[in-house]
Amino acid sequence: MTARLRPTITTLVFSLFVSAGLRVAGDEGMWTFDNPPLKLLQERYGFTPTPEWLEHVRLASVRFNDGGSGSFVSPTGLVLTNHHVAAGQLQKLSTPKKDYLKDGFYARTRAEEMKSADSELNVLVSMDNVTTQVQSAVKAGQDERQALESRKAEIARTEKESLDKTGLRSDVVALYAGGEYWLYRYKKYTDVRLVFAPERQIAFFGGDPDNFTFPRYDLDMAIFRVYENDKPVETKHFFKWSLKGAKDEELVFVSGHPGSTDRLKTLTQLEFQRDVVYPISIRTIERRLAALRAYGSRGSEQTRQAGDFVFGLENALKALTGEYAGINNAEIFAKKTKEENEFRSLINGKPDWTSAYGSAWDEVARAEQRARELYRPFRFRQLRGSSLAGLAAAIVTYVTEVTKPDAERLDGFHEAQLESLKLGLFSPAPSYSAMDEAVLTDSLQQSLEELGANDPFVKAALGGKPPADIVKATMAGTKVGDPSFRKSLVAGGKAAVDASTDPLIVLARNVDSVVRAARKAWEQEVESVESAAGEKLGRARFAAYGKSAYPDATFTLRLSFGTVKGYPMNGTRAPSMTTLYGLFDRAHSFGLKPPFDLPARWAERRTRLDLTTPLNFVSTLDIIGGNSGSPVLNRQAELVGLIFDGNIESLIGNVVYNEQVNRAVAVHSASMIEGLRKVYDAGPLADELQGIARPAPAAAKKSR
Amino acid sequence: MTARLRPTITTLVFSLFVSAGLRVAGDEGMWTFDNPPLKLLQERYGFTPTPEWLEHVRLASVRFNDGGSGSFVSPTGLVLTNHHVAAGQLQKLSTPKKDYLKDGFYARTRAEEMKSADSELNVLVSMDNVTTQVQSAVKAGQDERQALESRKAEIARTEKESLDKTGLRSDVVALYAGGEYWLYRYKKYTDVRLVFAPERQIAFFGGDPDNFTFPRYDLDMAIFRVYENDKPVETKHFFKWSLKGAKDEELVFVSGHPGSTDRLKTLTQLEFQRDVVYPISIRTIERRLAALRAYGSRGSEQTRQAGDFVFGLENALKALTGEYAGINNAEIFAKKTKEENEFRSLINGKPDWTSAYGSAWDEVARAEQRARELYRPFRFRQLRGSSLAGLAAAIVTYVTEVTKPDAERLDGFHEAQLESLKLGLFSPAPSYSAMDEAVLTDSLQQSLEELGANDPFVKAALGGKPPADIVKATMAGTKVGDPSFRKSLVAGGKAAVDASTDPLIVLARNVDSVVRAARKAWEQEVESVESAAGEKLGRARFAAYGKSAYPDATFTLRLSFGTVKGYPMNGTRAPSMTTLYGLFDRAHSFGLKPPFDLPARWAERRTRLDLTTPLNFVSTLDIIGGNSGSPVLNRQAELVGLIFDGNIESLIGNVVYNEQVNRAVAVHSASMIEGLRKVYDAGPLADELQGIARPAPAAAKKSR
Repeated sequence: MTARLRPTITTLVFSLFVSAGLRVAGDEGMWTFDNPPLKLLQERYGFTPTPEWLEHVRLASVRFNDGGSGSFVSPTGLVLTNHHVAAGQLQKLSTPKKDYLKDGFYARTRAEEMKSADSELNVLVSMDNVTTQVQSAVKAGQDERQALESRKAEIARTEKESLDKTGLRSDVVALYAGGEYWLYRYKKYTDVRLVFAPERQIAFFGGDPDNFTFPRYDLDMAIFRVYENDKPVETKHFFKWSLKGAKDEELVFVSGHPGSTDRLKTLTQLEFQRDVVYPISIRTIERRLAALRAYGSRGSEQTRQAGDFVFGLENALKALTGEYAGINNAEIFAKKTKEENEFRSLINGKPDWTSAYGSAWDEVARAEQRARELYRPFRFRQLRGSSLAGLAAAIVTYVTEVTKPDAERLDGFHEAQLESLKLGLFSPAPSYSAMDEAVLTDSLQQSLEELGANDPFVKAALGGKPPADIVKATMAGTKVGDPSFRKSLVAGGKAAVDASTDPLIVLARNVDSVVRAARKAWEQEVESVESAAGEKLGRARFAAYGKSAYPDATFTLRLSFGTVKGYPMNGTRAPSMTTLYGLFDRAHSFGLKPPFDLPARWAERRTRLDLTTPLNFVSTLDIIGGNSGSPVLNRQAELVGLIFDGNIESLIGNVVYNEQVNRAVAVHSASMIEGLRKVYDAGPLADELQGIARPAPAAAKKSR
Repeated sequence: MTARLRPTITTLVFSLFVSAGLRVAGDEGMWTFDNPPLKLLQERYGFTPTPEWLEHVRLASVRFNDGGSGSFVSPTGLVLTNHHVAAGQLQKLSTPKKDYLKDGFYARTRAEEMKSADSELNVLVSMDNVTTQVQSAVKAGQDERQALESRKAEIARTEKESLDKTGLRSDVVALYAGGEYWLYRYKKYTDVRLVFAPERQIAFFGGDPDNFTFPRYDLDMAIFRVYENDKPVETKHFFKWSLKGAKDEELVFVSGHPGSTDRLKTLTQLEFQRDVVYPISIRTIERRLAALRAYGSRGSEQTRQAGDFVFGLENALKALTGEYAGINNAEIFAKKTKEENEFRSLINGKPDWTSAYGSAWDEVARAEQRARELYRPFRFRQLRGSSLAGLAAAIVTYVTEVTKPDAERLDGFHEAQLESLKLGLFSPAPSYSAMDEAVLTDSLQQSLEELGANDPFVKAALGGKPPADIVKATMAGTKVGDPSFRKSLVAGGKAAVDASTDPLIVLARNVDSVVRAARKAWEQEVESVESAAGEKLGRARFAAYGKSAYPDATFTLRLSFGTVKGYPMNGTRAPSMTTLYGLFDRAHSFGLKPPFDLPARWAERRTRLDLTTPLNFVSTLDIIGGNSGSPVLNRQAELVGLIFDGNIESLIGNVVYNEQVNRAVAVHSASMIEGLRKVYDAGPLADELQGIARPAPAAAKKSR
């Protein structure tokens, strides 16, 4: 499966900074909608999307803020995404008695549609270039740290001003490593109701082994309906359903939200990632998974609670392992070295370029040197792993930050960001303190092992006691799992938090200053230098290569194009499509043993199915984690598929795109309809998706 | 597909020589029946085959002398093998009007069973150790060349004596690089009649792309019946058919004839292969394929004629390319280097071993140095590619060789070998002079390019003229395609050949002395040195490691054991089995386009089939080209499958066996029955295979 956006340190720390425009090969590219690849499309495919086409596609595309993409697929608010994007909400809607993640869900009437706990969906309604404004906030004579603060202050001001003026979610986005800044305004939806999800076993057939591979046999879909004022949202910007769906060798598009790429990192940055970040991330996930599996082994209810968490970590682990292999590949590193050398000689070939940009690589190298020293304290001086501890830490930070002028606050706590932040802070989603106890114990044990007993964070958190003891007592006594308690703390402000005797709030308070110091050190000694150098590199790239390029991914809306196409694999060819036949082949090939077992409904209703129906397909579309749930479109902007994964060969796509074997994996539009009609008795929903008129169901009339 | 035995230069030149016993890892090993791995089997699987079990398996196993394996599967002479082993005979039986290779064949009665043109089947009936006899034929003071001649003379004498005494085919086989010599006696069958073959498209579904890969979906089977004195052979040594067939994780055996391995070649030999032999072989096959494809493009009849030839070359090319990649792999070479270094230090650790064997590696190195100089003339001073030219050359050599004392003849022309040789020389199989013209032209053109216009062979063959002109005239005028003409020449002896004005005989005569000289140089300067050194290495290995080992493959009967088991592949797991569902998935995945199209009968009769039937399966069985058609057996020596291929990861098996991913691919016994009964209406044949009694068909009574 394509990872949902993984908020790794990579994303958090670097995504705003050192990337830059790229030169493009083949179907490569994640293009912003202000700079679509019209020339390339015309040259390669003889197709030029009109401005209306582009606007329609943009306005029908949806961002799932908990880490994925989606799209409107009906005039009355139906939104299609992946099961694994919906999984977080499915987990939150589930109870010990009803496991929607595992068993699926179908609302036969609108009244049965279930409101999700804390979904936020965004539609990009406008884009304004604010580069001059942000860059000119930096005053002559400011050093790197001051410059970073000035830019951040201007960004916060711009976002707040826009929010006040328009009421729309307003994000300033750094593209091309700060070569450009854009104000993106989003229409925001928070009443998002579940309409349909299949069983996890068919959505994620083949489980962890088949994840990120192809040929593949997954119905990784889910359908929500978006409401406003308790009524389904009406929109003319939705994708018409193509039952024929994707065809071999056809031109297709994807409009979605790739999370983060490192394609233009400098060599010293890649080396830092390779030598420090990946090994730490991988060993962290491995031990956290072990802790969660031990928790899950206590019983079926514990297994249910850990379901989506385990999936997310397994998914991230497989992705990171593939990326790590890629970044360790000598050929790939040689290619990156060659690219950087060419870029540097181009810049060094013109004296004015040299003086303006030439120092950037050495500046980055200096930042990476410090990063190697600061990374472990930065990463392990935090309460990680547990969502309850995360909520506690966020509340402790929140009440302090909101007392400051907007410009001086930590990222994530600016005025324009508070509404979305509160959606999570006050979410009614259930929490499981025993599970949080297991993961927080492991997390603190790891901090102890990585930093030693004398580290100030470890001392503040543990006070010399074993992590298990501290965490057991903390989780036993905390009320942070109760949304009304969290609300009361936030409402009470700093005074209430300072006075709280809730043990988890106390723990978060005890470590707060150490956490802040580590974050500050990282910001001042790494981020600020990378940021300034990154802006130079971004400008240098415009100077050297022009803007016939796309910026690294930033979890903002992008357009990619490609061809439905098989590829050479394992000595033979992978086809462009799989069929329902293949689902049953793979299941019986493994003797129906998990993770290759068939949901009962699929086994029982096999004879109803047209087994020649295409199930999944691959294309050269350039995607990455965050693109999960994106629509695949044909020239008519009809929906022909649903992105849910990249193949194993695409994992190095974080650093390089290789058109020969890099493939996006999607659910075919025909199999979604086949499944809805013949397995799930969801004919009315299929009709709505296909725009087939039929009398509104009686129950819909009494919809709330 | 597993290659049928490919008679490359590797096999021809080296297989008798420098190999030696191996230390064994896991399920590795191609064991001789005189030294079965009883200890290993007991340790790993708790199973010890009895002497009766071993004898039964040996006597039910069959060698197809045109390059493959098979087994008796009924008490009345039915022999099961692969379609691609039978393909040569299917090609020879076909006519412009009836293409059995493409369309398949089923004899509803015994009267309809079709006698193949020149099949020779062998069953190994006895094995005698003649090591002392052969080794002591070398007299003190003989140099390497004389020693080689002495051994060859003794081998020819032994074979002739055995033939005269027993009437059985008698071959002396060098094992462990001449560490041992064995006299193998074979019961020989030459009345081999075709009973059943499916369409090539289902036998070789997926064509060249899927060849040597897994998951796989092939019904690569064919069935002959062996006759003697115009009656089906009766035997109690046949394998009972297991309809349940192979099961996941089950212990299985294979009894077949692996052609040749290079696992114990020295490093200098491997380097010679890597640097010289593989590149030449690969470029030769590539150009020959181009010539044949150009010929095939002239029309459907030409395509038919070239069918099996093209398949064979494509098969060899894919195998060689995989082997070449393996031998170029730095890790594999490092492993081989480590092994050799360990072996050498062991030998150098004992003074008496050092003096007896220590010089062998340097002697081999010296031979390889000469081989690098002599290889191109040796290889390209021959009339290659064309079977008609091959027949002409064989006749010219034959009439000279048979005038000499047996001991002095070239290999292949000894008294004991003449009967099998004549089977081919006088075969009634059709020939196609236009196709031979195309390939011989290409072959002579290549000799010209590789050796230059002044080379004595090139001069003798072309006399300064373009290859196309020479070959056109030669093929237009020759009668070598006529078996009775060939018989008359052989009968007329040297005088008849010398007097012949047949242009192809004249061409073969013109080059004969140059060919002989090149062969002699190779024998005296390379083969003799390798042979003597190889014997030392073989003995050294016995001294160092004992005989808990198996010799390199020599196209003689071997027993391997292993487990039915999937393996890690392309980021996920390959299952141990595929099913009939998968056949239809892969066909429809590629839109039924060749080579993924379905034979009409399979498409029409799909609904009759139980699609959960296992189609192909993989196991850790250690096999290589020549094993094609071997039976896969369970502990009860029941037939559970039919070997037809190795996976792509197994191609390096020529040099190293890796239990993690090296897999043998087999047709499952259940799918053969399913196909026979439901697709081919061959119920009576299925009954016979399964031992289900039913009245003999009426027509059988009037069988000839």
